[in-house]
This record gives sequence, structure tokens and C-alpha cells, in this order.
Amino acid sequence: MRSARADAPHPTRSDARDNRARILEAARTVFGEEGLSAPMREVARHAGVGPATLYRHFPAKQDLILETFAEQRRACEAVVRDALADADPWHGFQSLVEEMCELHALSRGFADAFMAAHPEAADFAADRERALAAVGELARRARETGQLRPGFVVDDLILMLMAHRGVQDAPRAARLAASRRFAAYMIDGFRAAPAAAGPAALPPAPRLWSDCTPGLLPAAERPARAV
Amino acid sequence: MRSARADAPHPTRSDARDNRARILEAARTVFGEEGLSAPMREVARHAGVGPATLYRHFPAKQDLILETFAEQRRACEAVVRDALADADPWHGFQSLVEEMCELHALSRGFADAFMAAHPEAADFAADRERALAAVGELARRARETGQLRPGFVVDDLILMLMAHRGVQDAPRAARLAASRRFAAYMIDGFRAAPAAAGPAALPPAPRLWSDCTPGLLPAAERPARAV
Repeated sequence: MRSARADAPHPTRSDARDNRARILEAARTVFGEEGLSAPMREVARHAGVGPATLYRHFPAKQDLILETFAEQRRACEAVVRDALADADPWHGFQSLVEEMCELHALSRGFADAFMAAHPEAADFAADRERALAAVGELARRARETGQLRPGFVVDDLILMLMAHRGVQDAPRAARLAASRRFAAYMIDGFRAAPAAAGPAALPPAPRLWSDCTPGLLPAAERPARAV
Repeated sequence: MRSARADAPHPTRSDARDNRARILEAARTVFGEEGLSAPMREVARHAGVGPATLYRHFPAKQDLILETFAEQRRACEAVVRDALADADPWHGFQSLVEEMCELHALSRGFADAFMAAHPEAADFAADRERALAAVGELARRARETGQLRPGFVVDDLILMLMAHRGVQDAPRAARLAASRRFAAYMIDGFRAAPAAAGPAALPPAPRLWSDCTPGLLPAAERPARAV
């Protein structure tokens, strides 16, 4: 660490607090958009601080990641807790899947951290294990009520979250709608059998292909004629 | 282009043929494993030829990509043709989804090209449009027989293929199994309603999480107790 020069004004505590808040806000934006592979210098640039200031507040990327996603980690805990407390295990399972997808869709960085896609995100292992344990417990209960299909294993939820990361390649404006529609399809895939009336209505389909051949029935033609 | 020096032996035509074949084999491996973002120099290194030799055979990456995946493009055409010729439109739709996923799972490079994920893969637009037109046609017919769920749009197939690219982050040994299991779940999501006996058995679940908490019911515990 370098000592402050005598002629330079010492930063006040509130300057330091402002910088820290600016860095965290920049990290949420940069990691949220680009995922955890975004470099530290991009976070510094986005925050309008020098690399030295960034590293003074967060000596390692790991520290920055952990604090950047503190809110998402708390949200994830709440999702797990509420799902486990649901009196209807299938409804709890469904909510957990939907809300987990939404958390991942809103931040690529959190999805990367949760899925351990970067070595700096080791601290998220405990969150992940708790969430997966909840999935296992809810799945066990939803099997007993006959609402979850036989053969489901916890690895299938991981398979789904891996696939969900692929969905994040959708254009930014379509990302959340794509995530919701994807989650609805997967939940129907996990279901033992739809209601007698057939499967429920799907969330709206985002338009994912701009250069659709005429006659290809793009999303914009819904709901008049789906296929 | 440099002229050959008088004292250097001219490469024979069969040397050139060997080099071309080696380059294509290397490109299938390198692009297949890493996708189209793999650099040309890595293909040259893998083929054991110099960059000059690579660029003599394939002046642009686009040329190399097109020839590398000639076989996959023919396979894709055959999949589309067979699916359209299927007397049972839902069966044809299902086969098309499964076989398209398999083609993508066997080569990340082909998946990138098909999904237009790289600017050098513009030549695949026609293949893609043909495949999507076939999906639209089969979907239309499968809706008439009541086997495809209402609300399906062709964009949903694109959504699925985007998600499928996320599945390719699975460890190499698990990739094909993960792809098949994912396709089975999505097809059940696309289905209007399962048979009276409930959904069909799923393909085997690959183990995707190595550090499963005890009690989390990893894939290895199947089929004794799924959840």
C-alpha cells in the first residue's frame, strides 16, 4: 500500500463511501449485463474511479462479486424459504423454479455466480446447496402428491438452469419474456400430467428471430393464429 | 502470394489434398469443441500446417466454416425432409426437434453457425430458414391433430435451441445425455397433453453436479428413488 502524500488532501470518509457505492452500482450493471468474465478495469471505468481506488475497496474480484450480489443472495434465500413453507408442494416447486429463473435473468453475473461458472464465485456454493436441497425436498413432497413426474432428479434443475443461461443470449429487450416462457415450458415438462382441461396458457412469446420467412408465424402473429 | 523458390520442391497435388483434408478434420475438431470463436491459428496448429497453408486453402474463415460443416448441413437437410414426410405430424415434429438437438450437441461449431451466433456463418441462413419453415409446417399439422399445445409459435423452437446452447456447457462426457434429456423435457412441454398413462419415461439423467450434498438425490441414485 502506498502512503498518502503530504500535499494531497485526505479523502473524507464520505468520499470513500460515495466511491464504494459507485463501484457497487457499476459492478451490478457491468457484471449483470456481461457476466462475471467482465474485467475489473471495466467496473472501475464504469464507476468513474481509478483502478487503485477500486482495489483499495475490493482487493480481490471475489470480494467485489460477493458484495455486488448481496441483494440477490438475500432474495434467493427468501425464494427458497417461501417455497419450502408453501402448503402445496407443487406450487412451491413451481414458484422456486420461476423465481430462480427471474433472478438469473435479471443478472447474468448472479447466474454465473450461482452456477459456479467462474472461479471467483466460490462463496456462492452454500447458497446453491441450500437452494438445491430445497428443490430436492419440494420434489420429494410433490412426488408424493403425484404432481411431479416420476423420474425427476435434482440434476434436472441444474440442467434447466444451464439451459437458462443459453436463453440469456436473447436480445436484451426480450430476455425476461424469453426466460419466463422458457420456465413455463420446463415446468410443464416437469409436471406429472396437465389438468384435464389441457396445459395452462403460456406467458407471451418474445420475438427472437427478426428475419422470419413469411409464413413462419412469428411471435407477433399471436394470439390470432399460433401456428 | 510468394513464388516458390527454385530449390524448394513443388508440393505435389496429393500433398495439397492431404493438407486440405487435415485442415478440415482439425476444423471439425476445434470448431466442434470450442465453437466458431476458436481462432484460425488454432485450426492450423491442430492440423500441423502453417497459417500460410491454411489461408491458401481457405482465404476466409467463412469458407472454412462452410466446408467444415458440409456433412452436418446435409444431415440437417435430411432431418427436415424426413420429418416433413412423416405421416404422423407430431412424430415428425418430435423427430425434428430431437435430431436437430443431436446435431447441435455433436458440434458446438455447427450450433453456432445454425444459430447465426457468428458473423462468418451467414451462409447458414438458408438452411435455418428451411428448417424453421419445416417446423412451422409440422406445427400447423400437429395442431390440427391436437397433439401440439395451443400457443406454440416457431420462435419457441428458437428459444429451445438457444437454451440448448447453454446445455453444451455440461462436461463433455455428459453433453449428449444432457442434450437428449433436455430435448425430452421440452417436447413434453410442447405436447398438448400426455397419454392417459402419464408422460413417457425420460432418457437417462446425466450427473451434472459433482459436489452434491448428501440427500440431494444425484442422478446416480436413479432409478431406485428419483426424488
